[in-house]
Amino acid sequence: MIESTTPESADTVTVEDHLMIAHSLQGETFGPAQKLHGATYVVAATFQSPGLDGNNIVIDIGKARDLLHDLLDRFRYENLDELPELKGENTTTEFLCRYFHDRFAEKLEGLFTGRLTVALEESPVASAAYTAPVGNTPA
Amino acid sequence: MIESTTPESADTVTVEDHLMIAHSLQGETFGPAQKLHGATYVVAATFQSPGLDGNNIVIDIGKARDLLHDLLDRFRYENLDELPELKGENTTTEFLCRYFHDRFAEKLEGLFTGRLTVALEESPVASAAYTAPVGNTPA
Amino acid sequence: MIESTTPESADTVTVEDHLMIAHSLQGETFGPAQKLHGATYVVAATFQSPGLDGNNIVIDIGKARDLLHDLLDRFRYENLDELPELKGENTTTEFLCRYFHDRFAEKLEGLFTGRLTVALEESPVASAAYTAPVGNTPA
Amino acid sequence: MIESTTPESADTVTVEDHLMIAHSLQGETFGPAQKLHGATYVVAATFQSPGLDGNNIVIDIGKARDLLHDLLDRFRYENLDELPELKGENTTTEFLCRYFHDRFAEKLEGLFTGRLTVALEESPVASAAYTAPVGNTPA
Amino acid sequence: MIESTTPESADTVTVEDHLMIAHSLQGETFGPAQKLHGATYVVAATFQSPGLDGNNIVIDIGKARDLLHDLLDRFRYENLDELPELKGENTTTEFLCRYFHDRFAEKLEGLFTGRLTVALEESPVASAAYTAPVGNTPA
Amino acid sequence: MIESTTPESADTVTVEDHLMIAHSLQGETFGPAQKLHGATYVVAATFQSPGLDGNNIVIDIGKARDLLHDLLDRFRYENLDELPELKGENTTTEFLCRYFHDRFAEKLEGLFTGRLTVALEESPVASAAYTAPVGNTPA
Repeated sequence: MIESTTPESADTVTVEDHLMIAHSLQGETFGPAQKLHGATYVVAATFQSPGLDGNNIVIDIGKARDLLHDLLDRFRYENLDELPELKGENTTTEFLCRYFHDRFAEKLEGLFTGRLTVALEESPVASAAYTAPVGNTPA
Repeated sequence: MIESTTPESADTVTVEDHLMIAHSLQGETFGPAQKLHGATYVVAATFQSPGLDGNNIVIDIGKARDLLHDLLDRFRYENLDELPELKGENTTTEFLCRYFHDRFAEKLEGLFTGRLTVALEESPVASAAYTAPVGNTPA
Repeated sequence: MIESTTPESADTVTVEDHLMIAHSLQGETFGPAQKLHGATYVVAATFQSPGLDGNNIVIDIGKARDLLHDLLDRFRYENLDELPELKGENTTTEFLCRYFHDRFAEKLEGLFTGRLTVALEESPVASAAYTAPVGNTPA
Repeated sequence: MIESTTPESADTVTVEDHLMIAHSLQGETFGPAQKLHGATYVVAATFQSPGLDGNNIVIDIGKARDLLHDLLDRFRYENLDELPELKGENTTTEFLCRYFHDRFAEKLEGLFTGRLTVALEESPVASAAYTAPVGNTPA
Repeated sequence: MIESTTPESADTVTVEDHLMIAHSLQGETFGPAQKLHGATYVVAATFQSPGLDGNNIVIDIGKARDLLHDLLDRFRYENLDELPELKGENTTTEFLCRYFHDRFAEKLEGLFTGRLTVALEESPVASAAYTAPVGNTPA
Repeated sequence: MIESTTPESADTVTVEDHLMIAHSLQGETFGPAQKLHGATYVVAATFQSPGLDGNNIVIDIGKARDLLHDLLDRFRYENLDELPELKGENTTTEFLCRYFHDRFAEKLEGLFTGRLTVALEESPVASAAYTAPVGNTPA
């Protein structure tokens, strides 16, 4: 690995995909979004590491796009209210960022160590993101 | 009205809004989209006329935004499969362009005469549009 | 010129630039926009012709960008209310599309014959456009 | 087919994809672009017809995306200067719009009749498009 | 609150709005921008917290959009040079990020504790941002 | 300089430009991208500092745009495989972020001290970035 020249530096790669789902949110806070509605989510996954490998990459962009696509396939065109693994969860945009992040972390085991950010854009004026380390990394 | 200098010229104004809905599509053609899913639609309405009025406008942009917003309010956060007025319809993106167009034409009566285009973007890679004259216009 | 294979076909090239101006609008219709305010306009010029020349182009993209840039230089960072050539005009987005179109048509004399569209985006949710033939063209 | 309510109306569907290629352009007009360089082209295909079919669609969006993707596969990561079928051509953005249009028209035979527009965006400030009828259509 | 699983993780929500203003900048550095001109600013506010609340949210997106909209209402269609609270300030994009940030922090008291970023896009090629903690938070 | 009110705050300015190049990548990892192909890179440079100067700026936006434009001029319309200074390098998007970053750091000497991020978007679904301190700065 090409070590970073300083501890404050970072390299990132971002890939994007999208999916269309239905869901409803529970709780007065959500007002009309308590009704069964839906969203097109544009999903961006950002991989951050403290240096590049021998191929001058953080992660292969083609591979990263394929992995993200596979991850989202489970959820495309689904009503999230009816998926067993999401039963009882409020599938807010913030929650979905965390949920996709954690599922992605499993897929990335052995393939990537660093920080992973998963961002979901739900409309031209609203988005959310979750960032946390993945892999066997102390930081 | 400031007449166009040539019959082939045109003035347009476009305003945008968005909404989030759930629906399902009927027919083998639609594959996984036959399941109940959803979408964020970015809706663009384009008003075309053959000249400008005394205020140098096609239509007041603020008024046009308000009218579009009001039009979409009926559908925000709804499951289109359960709206009485859409019962039995395949609410494809193309259909929704026509449907919003026709509802908008009603709202615009007395306010705008010319061509109206309603475009819906359902994802970063797919959209549809419908264009037709509205108001008491021969062309 | 490579003639179009059918009379209904068309080739276009679009180039973009932007500028930042101040202005005010006269008339009750404009509500708060009657106050002196401003805008960043993203300006797109579309050149349409019924075929390509011997270089397989509608117009040289680099040349078109330069011409558009030069056109807008006169107006950058100006208060349109104080430009002599715009005195007494309501400089709405629609008007500016026409105005830039006509100034551009003068610059294009001898360089381009066909249809020219000038579109101005004033915000993420509002834009306008004007289209008309330029040059010595019967259509 | 649901006939349009007026001859001036139209329904469209647009799908997008992208590809990365190398090429050079011949002729002094092109200045530095005469050197071997490259581009990411965002390709948009718009299908226009005068009405919707029994499924309320112009063309199945999923099918249209697949067809466009297949069309571009032949050209991805290629040096256009070395493709036999493009030998001797100036592969300008305008030319490529026409070329992809005509290849797409072949793929669409029996699947779509109407107008097809192929647009290529080569940068945030420059794009081109070609539009012409495809299929066995009198208009 | 659902605590973050690691101290390096973070959840964010971003909402956007826009406004149109006039102003001038003082100082030779600003060249032609010393003249009275204007801008459309696209404003993005990002709320970052170290975990989600019982509703699985950082902040209610609808509420956040309303608060941002209210914040900007004071400045819409204004000439910033004439607002008493900005007299004598160079209202650069950077300054406005800080100014909107601090006004927003006041509005958010009791509603949000965490980091707030306010970003302003002034054109397709230029933007600025300011980020700092808000609320009664040690960091 | 206006000191930040807290150590966790930051001010940033971002400017953008783009360029079109050809290149090939070495190594099985890159699959079809091992062939000579090309890209349009949208390049964003973000300047981060812990406060604003007496003009209320991080860096003059016009100056920053000019500097970025000059930096990229060396590479526009080039085949990176044939540039002497890049001989033997795998010019991945990640590498180019670092390379442009380091060249930019040289140009910025005496003009800017803080953190610099260089981000390259290679397509609508893929990008990379590199961030590190520049100038005589301890952090």
